[in-house]
Amino acid sequence: MPINGSAAVPTAPVEVPRGLAGVVVTETQLGDVRGREGFYHYRQYSAVELAQTRSFEDVWHLMFHGALPDAAQRAEFAGQTAALRHLPEEVRAALPDIARASVLSGPLAGLRSALSLFGAAKGFRPVYDIDGERRRADALAASAVVPTLLTALYRLGQGLEPVEPRDDLPYAANYLYMLTGSQPGAERARAVEQYLISTIDHGFNASTFTARVITSTGADVAACLVGAVGALSGPLHGGAPSRALDTLDAIGTPDRIDPWIRERVLAGERIMGFGHPVYRTEDPRSRMLRGIAQGFGGELVEFAVEVERQVELILAELKPGRELHTNVEFYAGVVMELCGLPREMFTPTFASARVVGWGANILEQAEDSKIIRPAARYVGPVPPVSVPVAPEGPAA
Amino acid sequence: MPINGSAAVPTAPVEVPRGLAGVVVTETQLGDVRGREGFYHYRQYSAVELAQTRSFEDVWHLMFHGALPDAAQRAEFAGQTAALRHLPEEVRAALPDIARASVLSGPLAGLRSALSLFGAAKGFRPVYDIDGERRRADALAASAVVPTLLTALYRLGQGLEPVEPRDDLPYAANYLYMLTGSQPGAERARAVEQYLISTIDHGFNASTFTARVITSTGADVAACLVGAVGALSGPLHGGAPSRALDTLDAIGTPDRIDPWIRERVLAGERIMGFGHPVYRTEDPRSRMLRGIAQGFGGELVEFAVEVERQVELILAELKPGRELHTNVEFYAGVVMELCGLPREMFTPTFASARVVGWGANILEQAEDSKIIRPAARYVGPVPPVSVPVAPEGPAA
Repeated sequence: MPINGSAAVPTAPVEVPRGLAGVVVTETQLGDVRGREGFYHYRQYSAVELAQTRSFEDVWHLMFHGALPDAAQRAEFAGQTAALRHLPEEVRAALPDIARASVLSGPLAGLRSALSLFGAAKGFRPVYDIDGERRRADALAASAVVPTLLTALYRLGQGLEPVEPRDDLPYAANYLYMLTGSQPGAERARAVEQYLISTIDHGFNASTFTARVITSTGADVAACLVGAVGALSGPLHGGAPSRALDTLDAIGTPDRIDPWIRERVLAGERIMGFGHPVYRTEDPRSRMLRGIAQGFGGELVEFAVEVERQVELILAELKPGRELHTNVEFYAGVVMELCGLPREMFTPTFASARVVGWGANILEQAEDSKIIRPAARYVGPVPPVSVPVAPEGPAA
Repeated sequence: MPINGSAAVPTAPVEVPRGLAGVVVTETQLGDVRGREGFYHYRQYSAVELAQTRSFEDVWHLMFHGALPDAAQRAEFAGQTAALRHLPEEVRAALPDIARASVLSGPLAGLRSALSLFGAAKGFRPVYDIDGERRRADALAASAVVPTLLTALYRLGQGLEPVEPRDDLPYAANYLYMLTGSQPGAERARAVEQYLISTIDHGFNASTFTARVITSTGADVAACLVGAVGALSGPLHGGAPSRALDTLDAIGTPDRIDPWIRERVLAGERIMGFGHPVYRTEDPRSRMLRGIAQGFGGELVEFAVEVERQVELILAELKPGRELHTNVEFYAGVVMELCGLPREMFTPTFASARVVGWGANILEQAEDSKIIRPAARYVGPVPPVSVPVAPEGPAA
């Protein structure tokens, strides 16, 4: 029976690996990553196949409703999510202050504030106090509005007026439209859409876990998402697709690849955009994004492919048996650059897709009624030690 | 090596109790709860003894610096925290919009937004990118400003102007001053201060765990605190001291206590303010707060004591062996009512103390460099199933 700020029900302590590594905290039907096979999936479908053949809205529907939409559901869902792109007046009014306050901490801090405010303005209620339909409506509203919030904050930070969402454009095209103020070409819009689909979810990561912990207290959807955005902003979780691109810039020209990489690898430095904790093969997202980049072609793409080729050779020579390949960061950065996204929007763009994954995880966790609350072991001096008499002083 | 949105390092799955109950996720030197003894402590000191003999600032110093202050440290810390009560201009400017947006979702949603904005405005940086001194400065700044944010949002919601903090008042007196606009009497200020000290921490609860999970990604202090506020807003975590008081109102008069309670207990309903998942004895916070209430005396206190007496008798008769006593909610509500706090500020007042506990937990967790990231087990249909061809329709 939960009480104000209470500790956990006493249970015999259970010893587990540090950081809960490998500890199964929940079952999920949302997807998984198979590192040895270089494969990940959303529900029963290959995520890459979904990205190649479906719209963002189709996959969003799959994650939120459990199945890909039929023709009627597809039209309804597209209309429903497009209508949810618009901001309530209280949120719109606060965005200039939020943008001004976020100059130092960056766009994820801005999203954190704006999304918190949005949930409050919509009157989101604790997930355990509402039914599944209402929960889904809240998660849908919050995820639909993220591109509007992010692009408005970006433009305000640049001294530009926010651009109103357009209901007639699909998700990715509208995102680019709100960012730049002009309608993107079909090829760019589709490239960004495929990237977005491929990053909706990816196994059980720290932000997803955070969202589920907060959900398990019964808090509202915004509280859960805001926590997830916070976790994503941590350097041990969210990488940054812009880092790999910065590396390409730093190398500069093809003749400098070999000495530049060799020097860093020998110094024990990490090469941004290479290596993954799960995949022992090529990252399937990387493979897909390379294909998209090559569809555009051009100097940057040729240079990136050449860097990849040489880095793999050098790593195979200097770190044999490590199986270090490009990860999602490497070609994600290239694709976003080709599509005209400013680098500071790379991670926010990632967040605008991942919010759909968080939403699906919140909806799944809310079906469980058990709070996620582990224990800690006290290792300080044995109490009680008598409290010493307070020293005299102005605060006495 | 952490990558953008990556899944956990593959480890053999570890099976544990549901909700991670009893799973030891960390060691702590901050304190513990001993349910069978009716005892809880902050570091090596009895929390109740601290509340009875020390100032809020002293205990804050204990939690943040590891030791009670000497006279010089005490004066310095009081001055330092008082100076941190003031709001940056960007945050002040946004508060009316935040207050307006939080009418439906309540004061914790308002605090969530305001604290997020505050951290951004202060340019908080990832905890793993800064040293312990800077982390403590951030945690200190964030916790010092919570009473200012909460009272300003409350007053704006009431159509009143916020009251500027006064640096010459101790923590609790300043809190009441900012809330009401007039300086409280010494007895009231000290009663609220003792309540606040007693709720700074209480074992490893869900909001504290949330703060530590977000910290473990390396995110900034505001990201961690905002997640904790979100978790506290969940009905399975944060109780509400106002509920027990609502029960006293509902009973109404002493002659109605017995039939009112008996009817609910026989119907299997829970009596708000009674029962605790950990304490098998009286809740030590309840005992202390009853003493404070009795110091004030008056009709409400006599009525509360009589309700407690009769409920314990009825529960002993109808639920023998269950050891159901008042919990912290019961007399916390009475004390806050006696001190003139509006009921909607009871839980926010709790949060204004607990933020110090969260801060101390964030500082402790930030010394660890291991991300907290458990695993999930996929239990859906076996993939890959071929993605069906997209239906024709307007979203195609």
